Amino acid sequence: MANRLRIIPLGGMGEIGKNMTLFEYGRNILIVDCGSMFPENDMWGIDLVIPDFGYLRDKFEQVRGVILTHGHEDHTGALPYLLRETSLTIYCTRLTRGLVEVKVDRAGIRNRANLQTIQAGERLRLGPFDLSFFSVNHSIPDGIGLAIRTPVGNVVHSGDFKLDLGAGLDSQLDLAGLAQLGGEGVSLLMADSTGAERPGFTPPERVVEDTFERIFAEAPGRVIVATFASLLSRVQQVIDVSARHNRKVAVEGRSMADNVAMAQEMGYLRIPPDTLVDIRKANSLPPSRVTIVATGSQGEPRAALARMAAGTNRQIEIRPDDTIIVSAQTIPGNEEMVNRIINQLIQRGANVIYGEMAQVHVSGHGSQEDQKLLIRLLRPRYFMPIHGEPRHQYQHARLARQMGIPPERILIMQNGDVLELGEETAEKGEPISQAEVFVDGAGVGDVGPAVLRDREILSRDGFVVAVVSLLPGGQAVGGVQIVSRGFVYLREAEDLLQRMRAEAMRVAQAGPLTDRSISERVQRGLESFLLQETGRRPMVIALVTT
Amino acid sequence: MANRLRIIPLGGMGEIGKNMTLFEYGRNILIVDCGSMFPENDMWGIDLVIPDFGYLRDKFEQVRGVILTHGHEDHTGALPYLLRETSLTIYCTRLTRGLVEVKVDRAGIRNRANLQTIQAGERLRLGPFDLSFFSVNHSIPDGIGLAIRTPVGNVVHSGDFKLDLGAGLDSQLDLAGLAQLGGEGVSLLMADSTGAERPGFTPPERVVEDTFERIFAEAPGRVIVATFASLLSRVQQVIDVSARHNRKVAVEGRSMADNVAMAQEMGYLRIPPDTLVDIRKANSLPPSRVTIVATGSQGEPRAALARMAAGTNRQIEIRPDDTIIVSAQTIPGNEEMVNRIINQLIQRGANVIYGEMAQVHVSGHGSQEDQKLLIRLLRPRYFMPIHGEPRHQYQHARLARQMGIPPERILIMQNGDVLELGEETAEKGEPISQAEVFVDGAGVGDVGPAVLRDREILSRDGFVVAVVSLLPGGQAVGGVQIVSRGFVYLREAEDLLQRMRAEAMRVAQAGPLTDRSISERVQRGLESFLLQETGRRPMVIALVTT
Repeated sequence: MANRLRIIPLGGMGEIGKNMTLFEYGRNILIVDCGSMFPENDMWGIDLVIPDFGYLRDKFEQVRGVILTHGHEDHTGALPYLLRETSLTIYCTRLTRGLVEVKVDRAGIRNRANLQTIQAGERLRLGPFDLSFFSVNHSIPDGIGLAIRTPVGNVVHSGDFKLDLGAGLDSQLDLAGLAQLGGEGVSLLMADSTGAERPGFTPPERVVEDTFERIFAEAPGRVIVATFASLLSRVQQVIDVSARHNRKVAVEGRSMADNVAMAQEMGYLRIPPDTLVDIRKANSLPPSRVTIVATGSQGEPRAALARMAAGTNRQIEIRPDDTIIVSAQTIPGNEEMVNRIINQLIQRGANVIYGEMAQVHVSGHGSQEDQKLLIRLLRPRYFMPIHGEPRHQYQHARLARQMGIPPERILIMQNGDVLELGEETAEKGEPISQAEVFVDGAGVGDVGPAVLRDREILSRDGFVVAVVSLLPGGQAVGGVQIVSRGFVYLREAEDLLQRMRAEAMRVAQAGPLTDRSISERVQRGLESFLLQETGRRPMVIALVTT
Repeated sequence: MANRLRIIPLGGMGEIGKNMTLFEYGRNILIVDCGSMFPENDMWGIDLVIPDFGYLRDKFEQVRGVILTHGHEDHTGALPYLLRETSLTIYCTRLTRGLVEVKVDRAGIRNRANLQTIQAGERLRLGPFDLSFFSVNHSIPDGIGLAIRTPVGNVVHSGDFKLDLGAGLDSQLDLAGLAQLGGEGVSLLMADSTGAERPGFTPPERVVEDTFERIFAEAPGRVIVATFASLLSRVQQVIDVSARHNRKVAVEGRSMADNVAMAQEMGYLRIPPDTLVDIRKANSLPPSRVTIVATGSQGEPRAALARMAAGTNRQIEIRPDDTIIVSAQTIPGNEEMVNRIINQLIQRGANVIYGEMAQVHVSGHGSQEDQKLLIRLLRPRYFMPIHGEPRHQYQHARLARQMGIPPERILIMQNGDVLELGEETAEKGEPISQAEVFVDGAGVGDVGPAVLRDREILSRDGFVVAVVSLLPGGQAVGGVQIVSRGFVYLREAEDLLQRMRAEAMRVAQAGPLTDRSISERVQRGLESFLLQETGRRPMVIALVTT
């Protein structure tokens, strides 16, 4: 197998290879990205979902390095968990490094990470992998894609990308570099599918700024812009437009404030002197001189925007002359929360601009024409759509066929699938064993389907615990105590509680007085009693004490 | 107050007056609609949300009748709960009556409902209310709006409506009737705001049929159409297109099958002979001769489409030559589930058509131009946007201002607000006390915020119950039993369990041996022990037995 390159996408839940991709050649492993996902609504109580490191665990000494394509959580968020298990050399651009440093410092594992700064245009040799990096446009500066030259051919991994001809040179899709790679010959292109359902090119960020100009010009009072804390280019636009309209800018929300401070210090935000003010200062200015940029565009209940909507933000009270811009796309699963906040803000009289009403957001991912451009420049022999869900992979594969790549050279992978790339071949090997790994509090991987199923039941109807006391000697039942939460409001259901006790008592005595026999009888008896009385199915547990 | 008409929108959660509106004149009450809502994702375990009948409760004898505008759940679903409390005369069109009969029969309260069939064009006097009904287009046939002539003026309530000039005459917006009402003079228009964010007219249903024609013509195998069980016009289109393409139609999903049978019997579906087949018969035909119309367009986990996607539908196995159309708009909160199902179907190789890819669905609600048409025809003195959320009300109010209604005559209500309409005036009175009423199993209104908060906590980290036994005489602690669910998988956490027991034992003994003192100590002790050990906050309860 030494003459095969093995490529394994991992993590990202429904999104293929979003969080991590392994490249394995002989006894050499290259890791691209190490990110985490936020849980879906039915992953009860889970804080994060990270890739399964099981396949790597007995091969850590083969890892030649980790390349991070950019600084977003879904590409860096699992690093602290991987670094707990092994020390690693991590290669990333300057801004990404700034963000990762904060992360590893917080986790107290800075000493496990050997951080190396790379930049687009550089070349780097890691074992058999001869790498070069090219800049891409994305919704955070300093993003890269990479070319991996291997003995079996050249592989290009796009990272998250789009084309935006109006961006600064340091964050622009490197068309010349891509054309040169295309000339060298590309065996396999792995490209970002996220935007494959959108026709056309993704509009340039500039259109958002134009929209902001119009909105700011008409706003009678404050302008409040909610967006992602990591969307630094949007923050820059808010600052630029505010400065032109003679407004001071206050930053609300801890993650936004941290990012702005870090990006300003590293030179990724250009902020005119005296433009940033704290919120107290902003509150002392005329509303028409104030902009607030805030977290909470996804409806996160504890973020700045949700608190403003609910009237629980101590510093910011929404007024009828406020103009509020929700400058973000709602991530599936968050619609209900975002919707509720928009309604609350409107009920407070504010002018809220969101969704399709005006172009207040553009995606960080390329649309169909961006994707076709990449294929045209690189002319790969094989094509692998990555980073999207199956629906995006499928559309991206259609585009690739339209661009002349024969269907048998289009490789639709799932997480854990293994592509074995030879000089003339690309075949799927035996998939590796992997699963989504749940982080819950301090626990990693200790919450599985059984616990989640219990949480789901508890979320619906709560629980009832019946404690049956046997009299000394264990020859008779002494009494029953009932405790319950999330089932009915027991203070108002004293009658039901008494009948539950009586029923448990009756059932407990109606058979052998062994612990196990009593608890089984009481559990089943109460379950059917409660179903009949209330139509509900709380989780019932019976315990026996002597 | 006898010379004032009081108008009170109720129910519908965020949507104003969606489920119910009260009209009160002197000691006479007219009820329009009596519907229910599906709960939002954070209404843990709740089955239905219904309007608060508290205000009506000591006035039931004043109710002159209930008018149902159409047969959808959000306009009829709470009837069984209101009929539990009082007998009522209910006026509705023929199809609506058919649907309501099924509902009251199932609830076993047919004898409480005096059902009266009305039809568009009819006039009906109920106490001081002189009513007439006009037909509207909506996504179910036989929908009506109503004009309420009262001593203080004429009120028009649009019901859910849109304009579709291609629909059958019995279900078409009655332009002539509306023009005539406009000529009579309209004091107040209460109009459906749901589509107020969409520019233009809502496209006619016909465009969906044209899309179906193209898809059916190209489909190599079966066509599977998922839509709402109540969307009979869509089912009719599927049947018509199937017949033209020589396909038999099988109906999957109980609610869809019930509705199709009822609508066919009542003449609301025109089905050519031998077109409907059962699924077994369909499975014996060549795939290119088969259409399946199914429930599950909202991603409901137990509905037909979800089972096909998961591979658990016993009769229907998805094949790569299947063409699947998701003919519905995703209701906010359901996106994650719908998305997952689309991905699963694509991974099974099917060609899935959804969302913006092709016009496979149109809304049942009017867009901005439909709404303007209604205002133009009726030229009301006062305007009240209803049936939408605040964001829709707000946009609808903007339209009304554009149409020349002065802002002070545009009445933005919340549920429970009271409009007092006089001959020359419209003023808000004291709001009535009302809340969302939760139905959970057999219980109505017995689950409130406290129980929901407990369910939320349980859904995140589960619970731990510690039972502390005192030795006979109560002078010493005998032992501790721990039971827990949804917290950690205890079989794999034996060590943690032992330490929990030891900690509970230690804390129990570290103070006075009264029940209350022990249980408080053990609860707090375990909470902080578990937070430190696991980073989680399960609900902890301590019980003492002697």
